[in-house]
Amino acid sequence: MPEIARQDLHASVSDPESASMNFLNEVAARFPDAISLAAGRPYDGFHSTDELDRYLRSYLAHLEGLGLTREQRERQLLQYGKTNGHLGALIARMLVVDEGIEVPEQAVMVTSGCQEAMVIALRGLCARPEDVVLAVEPCYVGLTGAARLLGIEVVPVPESAGGLDPETVTDVVAAVRATGRRPRALYLVPSFANPSGASMPLPLRRRLLEVAEEADLLILEDDPYGLFGLDDEPRPALKSLDGGGRVIYLGSFAKSCFPGARVGFLVADQQVVASDGRRTLLAEELSSVKSLLTVNTSPVAQAVIGGFLVEAGCSLRAAGKEKTAFYRGNLRALLDALERHFGAEPRVRWNAPAGGFFAVLDVPLVADEALLETSGRDYGVLWTPMSFFYGAGSAGRPGGGGRRSIRLSCSALEPARIEEGVRRLAELIRDHSEPEPAAGAGAPR
Amino acid sequence: MPEIARQDLHASVSDPESASMNFLNEVAARFPDAISLAAGRPYDGFHSTDELDRYLRSYLAHLEGLGLTREQRERQLLQYGKTNGHLGALIARMLVVDEGIEVPEQAVMVTSGCQEAMVIALRGLCARPEDVVLAVEPCYVGLTGAARLLGIEVVPVPESAGGLDPETVTDVVAAVRATGRRPRALYLVPSFANPSGASMPLPLRRRLLEVAEEADLLILEDDPYGLFGLDDEPRPALKSLDGGGRVIYLGSFAKSCFPGARVGFLVADQQVVASDGRRTLLAEELSSVKSLLTVNTSPVAQAVIGGFLVEAGCSLRAAGKEKTAFYRGNLRALLDALERHFGAEPRVRWNAPAGGFFAVLDVPLVADEALLETSGRDYGVLWTPMSFFYGAGSAGRPGGGGRRSIRLSCSALEPARIEEGVRRLAELIRDHSEPEPAAGAGAPR
Repeated sequence: MPEIARQDLHASVSDPESASMNFLNEVAARFPDAISLAAGRPYDGFHSTDELDRYLRSYLAHLEGLGLTREQRERQLLQYGKTNGHLGALIARMLVVDEGIEVPEQAVMVTSGCQEAMVIALRGLCARPEDVVLAVEPCYVGLTGAARLLGIEVVPVPESAGGLDPETVTDVVAAVRATGRRPRALYLVPSFANPSGASMPLPLRRRLLEVAEEADLLILEDDPYGLFGLDDEPRPALKSLDGGGRVIYLGSFAKSCFPGARVGFLVADQQVVASDGRRTLLAEELSSVKSLLTVNTSPVAQAVIGGFLVEAGCSLRAAGKEKTAFYRGNLRALLDALERHFGAEPRVRWNAPAGGFFAVLDVPLVADEALLETSGRDYGVLWTPMSFFYGAGSAGRPGGGGRRSIRLSCSALEPARIEEGVRRLAELIRDHSEPEPAAGAGAPR
Repeated sequence: MPEIARQDLHASVSDPESASMNFLNEVAARFPDAISLAAGRPYDGFHSTDELDRYLRSYLAHLEGLGLTREQRERQLLQYGKTNGHLGALIARMLVVDEGIEVPEQAVMVTSGCQEAMVIALRGLCARPEDVVLAVEPCYVGLTGAARLLGIEVVPVPESAGGLDPETVTDVVAAVRATGRRPRALYLVPSFANPSGASMPLPLRRRLLEVAEEADLLILEDDPYGLFGLDDEPRPALKSLDGGGRVIYLGSFAKSCFPGARVGFLVADQQVVASDGRRTLLAEELSSVKSLLTVNTSPVAQAVIGGFLVEAGCSLRAAGKEKTAFYRGNLRALLDALERHFGAEPRVRWNAPAGGFFAVLDVPLVADEALLETSGRDYGVLWTPMSFFYGAGSAGRPGGGGRRSIRLSCSALEPARIEEGVRRLAELIRDHSEPEPAAGAGAPR
């Protein structure tokens, strides 16, 4: 039997970021009774397998209403199909109804989850060795991982406490161009980001689009949490403000419907011009990439989501009221619990996200893998070191950010468990905090 | 609105191979009434959407039988799940029953179709710029496309009329190593290949495994057509003969069940050794790549295939008897029609595949895109230029092979349509053949 040396496999197998995520999964498996403030998955209680057949039948009835024969309907679900999928019209309608985004259905590509949409966008846009992608830091690991898989460099754009500052983007673009590299796109989650929870205010969203125009940059807008604001204040997607056609919009049904369908989508209505002058939409061109990754997205899974959309009148906002209320309640429970357990501790600080699944807690100790293991074993609570979300694009281990911060997720738990999880976390932090500097002790000169 | 120059997109968008496949799709769309001897998809008539709910319920009952609680069963279908999927045990059982392949379930990764399995295997194995993959030529375009997406060079290993000669592999490996490149794996379809229809006899299969051992090479065995032999002669998968652990087996349910599930799998039971001596299976290591491509394969789609496997007693051979009989009948119909319409034409030759969906016809004319267009428009029959399957890894257009050959597929049609398609094809070829050299005219000296 041949033995394969692990270091002979591709970097995406053996690099530290993958190792971090594996470590997280292992710790979760070793301490199954710990309360997980690490898991960012949606809550289990909203859907049932009993619905699957109903969704399939709703979608088949919808196809019949469109005039497809029985043979055509059968083929649509059971055969290979269009590379870009068959939900373009329903998703385009949903984008109008929920987000005020108007795009032709040909600009929509259905993907095997939003992760595949990221891979496709990065692969299509980055053609040459000098092509790089910018990404807000701290950054969702799925984006940095997709880039690593393709050998594309990720240049971090640091996010401040108030979220991304568009002027920083201008600076980073200039610095990147000065080295001969070509920035192809900027990735960000403008509403309730993972991991930071930050959201961009409307004026900064408008300014970011101007910056993209000035810098001739595309934007990859990832929007998995947009439905889950703490209030009803509108936070328009960048794509809905995108008069200049700068935004590629990445969407997911994992949170608005359920993850097990693995259906996401990409919206790319930019004009592509061939050397012979022929014009197409970027989503149409990217279908070559999609066909080489997964041929097309499972038509059965598409039909499940199609039925859900048909039943929802193409409005996730209308259909998702119960989910929105639940996640609001959970985020409030998390923020209340943080106040209750850390309010009297001046060295612990946290942000106040306006929605979404995540908040960040700054703590007076190094929140690393060793502490996480202690936390799981001795305190029965899990969380994610923020350092996992830094270091985008660097070859080595976390770029130095987030060492004294942890990401807390509140999406998968009942509120009472959130309270208990934060109580256990407070114990951990109390027991392990570094000693306070003695009063009056000055900084070393 | 910004315009994106097409040549600024990645090569997988704009290169000639993609263009060839797009051309094929366009021609098919423009002549929808033409008989397609080009389409390699499975026949439509074997499955119905009415079965989907039954498969889902069969799989849920199977999970209940394994002792999973209702909550666990719901979560398995609707949540994110294990990266490598939840069909490992059923697929491992199927491999024993149908193929005599014994592997632990941890060696099985469920993928979003076999295409994703190719991308994952190539990405995991090719780590450095000098790493290349060898592939039998003519080659399935999905493999060369996957390599192009990842920037991996494909070195062709020419196939002769009798299929792959293992000694050629030895020669190509030596030539590649002499240039400082590192051959990581050899891709082939040993039974009823796409596009050539060729199959390797048993002694050559054994010899190929010895060659792999001697050359320290892994083999990517793609086996989508193994069930569809013209006779019942056993043609063991390379993986079933693989005492040395050289074979990564790639499987698909697109033909044995139906394509619309988009479920395939990869079997990699090779030992991977980390620098600290820790041992894992290659399939487990490759899960890092899978998670960055599509997170996991749609658990709903997996459950559909799972139910199919449960109902089939994990034997595709037993459950697929009707399909096997149908495709046998179709291949016989194709070979009979070729004999009927070309038997008296010495300048037209074809091979006699022992099974599968494809045969190759050598014709006395250049069978290129222009001829295909004429064929669709004026003769009402479509086919695939064999030149599309040559030129693996080269930057330019088809490497020169297959210019006077066409691939004929017989999988998607009723037998009567196959006969009529070949009749039309014979007209086309009669009308367009190059003049025969005058009798007695010698070759130029």
